[in-house]
Amino acid sequence: STANNTYNRYMNIRSGSWSLAAAKVLKEAGLRVVVLEARDRVGGRTYTVQFQYVDLGGAYVGPTQNAILKLAKELGVQTYLINEKEKLIHYVKGKTYPFQGLFPPVWNPIAYLDYNNLWRTIDEMGEKIPAEAPWTAAQAVQWDNMSMKELFDKLCWTRVARDFATLFINVNVTSEPHEVSALWFLWYIKQCGGTKRIFSTSNGGQERKFIGGSGQISERIAELLGSCVRLNEPVIKICQKDTAVFVETISGGKYEVINAVPPGLTMKVHYDPQLPSVRNQLIQRVPMGSIIKCMMYYKRPFWKEKDYCGTMMIEDEDSPISMTLDDTKPDGSYPCIMGKVKVSEIYAKVLDSEEALHPVHYEEKDWCGEQYSGGCYTAYFPPGTFCQFSRVLRQPFGRLFFAGTETATKWSGYMDGAVQAGERAAKEVGWDLHWQSEGCRVTEYPLEVGRKQKLTSEGGQPEIYEFGSKKILWAGETKIKLLDN
Amino acid sequence: STANNTYNRYMNIRSGSWSLAAAKVLKEAGLRVVVLEARDRVGGRTYTVQFQYVDLGGAYVGPTQNAILKLAKELGVQTYLINEKEKLIHYVKGKTYPFQGLFPPVWNPIAYLDYNNLWRTIDEMGEKIPAEAPWTAAQAVQWDNMSMKELFDKLCWTRVARDFATLFINVNVTSEPHEVSALWFLWYIKQCGGTKRIFSTSNGGQERKFIGGSGQISERIAELLGSCVRLNEPVIKICQKDTAVFVETISGGKYEVINAVPPGLTMKVHYDPQLPSVRNQLIQRVPMGSIIKCMMYYKRPFWKEKDYCGTMMIEDEDSPISMTLDDTKPDGSYPCIMGKVKVSEIYAKVLDSEEALHPVHYEEKDWCGEQYSGGCYTAYFPPGTFCQFSRVLRQPFGRLFFAGTETATKWSGYMDGAVQAGERAAKEVGWDLHWQSEGCRVTEYPLEVGRKQKLTSEGGQPEIYEFGSKKILWAGETKIKLLDN
Repeated sequence: STANNTYNRYMNIRSGSWSLAAAKVLKEAGLRVVVLEARDRVGGRTYTVQFQYVDLGGAYVGPTQNAILKLAKELGVQTYLINEKEKLIHYVKGKTYPFQGLFPPVWNPIAYLDYNNLWRTIDEMGEKIPAEAPWTAAQAVQWDNMSMKELFDKLCWTRVARDFATLFINVNVTSEPHEVSALWFLWYIKQCGGTKRIFSTSNGGQERKFIGGSGQISERIAELLGSCVRLNEPVIKICQKDTAVFVETISGGKYEVINAVPPGLTMKVHYDPQLPSVRNQLIQRVPMGSIIKCMMYYKRPFWKEKDYCGTMMIEDEDSPISMTLDDTKPDGSYPCIMGKVKVSEIYAKVLDSEEALHPVHYEEKDWCGEQYSGGCYTAYFPPGTFCQFSRVLRQPFGRLFFAGTETATKWSGYMDGAVQAGERAAKEVGWDLHWQSEGCRVTEYPLEVGRKQKLTSEGGQPEIYEFGSKKILWAGETKIKLLDN
Repeated sequence: STANNTYNRYMNIRSGSWSLAAAKVLKEAGLRVVVLEARDRVGGRTYTVQFQYVDLGGAYVGPTQNAILKLAKELGVQTYLINEKEKLIHYVKGKTYPFQGLFPPVWNPIAYLDYNNLWRTIDEMGEKIPAEAPWTAAQAVQWDNMSMKELFDKLCWTRVARDFATLFINVNVTSEPHEVSALWFLWYIKQCGGTKRIFSTSNGGQERKFIGGSGQISERIAELLGSCVRLNEPVIKICQKDTAVFVETISGGKYEVINAVPPGLTMKVHYDPQLPSVRNQLIQRVPMGSIIKCMMYYKRPFWKEKDYCGTMMIEDEDSPISMTLDDTKPDGSYPCIMGKVKVSEIYAKVLDSEEALHPVHYEEKDWCGEQYSGGCYTAYFPPGTFCQFSRVLRQPFGRLFFAGTETATKWSGYMDGAVQAGERAAKEVGWDLHWQSEGCRVTEYPLEVGRKQKLTSEGGQPEIYEFGSKKILWAGETKIKLLDN
């Protein structure tokens, strides 16, 4: 049938790679899939180079990141623990303070209260923000109209707390307190499980890395997809007609598609018809963070000999680096410290060791110059933008669907969010298909899509599936209906 | 020669239209020019529709806007005065207060002092910001890291002043006080001649409109350029090689070029080689303002019968409109009020007239939905972005030159700035050409380019020209040198 001709060719458009997760879901559902990749490699904001599998992009995973951990397990990629056996270092006012635990200890009792109040308040405010619909929070507009700098000015009485809060923002979202909407940042921390979870190595977002590098996830999916993955094919135009969607790439390729693209970089595409007003403005308002990731390799892990694990939290206006982690391989080979800008003198100062000035190898990646990433780790929302524009982040436009880690509702900004978003978008496509085969147009999608779980199955049909918080009646291949909960 | 083959074909790439000014300069200099226009019309953010030449985009001009006024005169387009004979209206707390003069009068003596202090301070801060290099201001970083909302919170003691200050931002840059960098907004007001000049109708930015509409400027230049103007040709790729620059358009056209594009929407283009890191991040950080412009036509200019001129400054949280102006034609025909969103009830409330509810005709334009404008009037810089990114706004990348009103140093954001920027970019191209014919690569350009004025001319050669504040030795067609002042 015509419908089949149109619907049999599915495509996933990504400048990055994690739509590979979406493509995988669609392919497993029996659809024909094509992945159009702008770069000459898969992986997007993950990038593993060959010198002993160095992750110069997204690298860390931790508990509750179930989407990426499940996918890795399925693909046979294993993890290892980041070293945090020895002491962590808090470097402030030119001095090195070793400590153990999550946050650096604060001795001044006033500062101690201030500090604890800060974390508690951030988490409490986060609890009032729904992960799936942050714009519905009671104080959404008020919080969105202030920057985190303004919120810190209101919350913090001591410079100690304010300074560490700045480091907390630098480290988590590669931007500055005055650049980001408070609503957005509070939401961001909340959907990662709170201040402790996001900032921790042990039991937190930085607990593990992948043996062999995170790039393997994309590469292994790409292997499964085979010739469906087309490299060096940046999409330049998406034209939606009544009967089909046409996509053009820079090399002149033309595809019939339903696609999934991330926000921000979707500016690179020309649309016919034009995007709706709100999305047209949204995609100008989600700049990517700024980071240069660098790895310094040493002959010996001299920091361990001083009983330091390699974690340094650096508060120093002159230091271009805020935070480091040990990046030595799990078998102890290739001693390495991972930091965020290319200067080694600061390590020597903090670790008080001449050896820090003599790395044996160096790797870096300036993500700010990447045309098809824009920056790293993730997009941020400047003050006043999150309320109005976040609500359309995941909203399909015709048969154009949106993935990318920025559209996730849990660990958005992370590899885990990227996988979640890709899988959700794939399911939206599936849902759309079923409706279309009924001759209907889908206008509403479940905002949050967990794993598709079969809830009932008496005699096979009808089946009820759960898309996140919504229940869906899926009657065979032809009927689908959103059920009231 | 090869050089001539390469350099004879010049091109101006614009999604808008004011590069037509650049194209005009280049053509007059004897170069072959092609203008690649993304839309099916010239004019960009100016747009005159046929119902009695209604300007649904950029419309107003005033004193000191010499670039646009000179160009209009040359093209034979005349201006007329905006009506402000009768009283203006300040609508606040649900009441209509008629007044005359520039700003609404304030009767409360504390508020009066606060109010005057606000305008004086904004202008004084502006004086400390160099129009050509705002990032060099002594307090640039501090001011850039706060929003205008934060500055108002510091400056204003009364709600009266703060509320009117919000209206002042809404009207001038179609965005909110919490969205914009204070450094950027102070710079913006300064380079338009200060608070009075930018806000005034008489003797200010809204003094006049063009008889026949502003669209005529672009249309008449397009006529002069003839077949050089190619409509429906959005640029998708710019590839710079050693010997030439290649531009591809969506229709498959290929051109050898040196070009001039505006910031923000340059995201629509794919670059080879990639843009430098700072520009790659800049173009994600300059969102366009949000505006729907609307015109309400009435049988009679009933507001004049009430001794109101049609100017309304509306402070009302429930009103989607902040400011209106009379838009009746100069001969008194087509009585009309120009406002910024599509609701007529508010006019009836403010003007206290049933007639306001019965317009005879209505025109509107939602600029937010325009793919090739992004919004209107102009790009704004969110807090923390202006210092770092404004310095590369005009910086050429290889043989790619940047125009657009955002790159201007006087009346940036206005039609006048667009013409200034186009003419400057054209001169940069000319400068680049001369150097290249010497086998040299140009690495430095005059930041500010006024009119090219011949300063010496003894026997014809060498000639010294003035590009803004820089003096340039231009020896015939072959030599060019930047002179120390």
